[in-house]
Amino acid sequence: MIKVIATNYLKQEQEEAFNPLFRELIAATRKESGCIEYRLFKKPDEKGVYIFIEEWENQAVLDKHMASEHFTRIIPQIGKFKTKDMTIQLLEEFK
Amino acid sequence: MIKVIATNYLKQEQEEAFNPLFRELIAATRKESGCIEYRLFKKPDEKGVYIFIEEWENQAVLDKHMASEHFTRIIPQIGKFKTKDMTIQLLEEFK
Repeated sequence: MIKVIATNYLKQEQEEAFNPLFRELIAATRKESGCIEYRLFKKPDEKGVYIFIEEWENQAVLDKHMASEHFTRIIPQIGKFKTKDMTIQLLEEFK
Repeated sequence: MIKVIATNYLKQEQEEAFNPLFRELIAATRKESGCIEYRLFKKPDEKGVYIFIEEWENQAVLDKHMASEHFTRIIPQIGKFKTKDMTIQLLEEFK
């Protein structure tokens, strides 16, 4: 199992342009086999910060996700609204 | 619903001292009513970083958690091993 926290920093004032992109990415991704969790969160106290919390069965399905048509098409479109680069944290569960 | 990402920065070499504290805190917390998720993760590529991903029904149960006997007793004990202060992000789900 791989847990991912991916944090996006975007121009909040343009959310009407990127919100539909997020919705499309979420809907398509949740259909992928091996995708256990794929949820997007906002920080009420910090505008423009969008945090994906994801869970994948293994690295192979995560790699497949990042090579998928919807990911490779939509992520660059969302990237046009960034204020700084996305950060990605790959985590393993504490045992 | 409230999602929480709480990141702890600890002296990795002393994990045998704080691991049991984490386990006790996790076991007690998961019994709390209103606790939807309470999981701890490590970063394979960054030693000493311990990230709680939590989900709570509402702010009231989260407040109750942070005032609980186990939280108020264990968190300071874990804090003795910190290399820098914990960061806490309170999130709401993107709709």
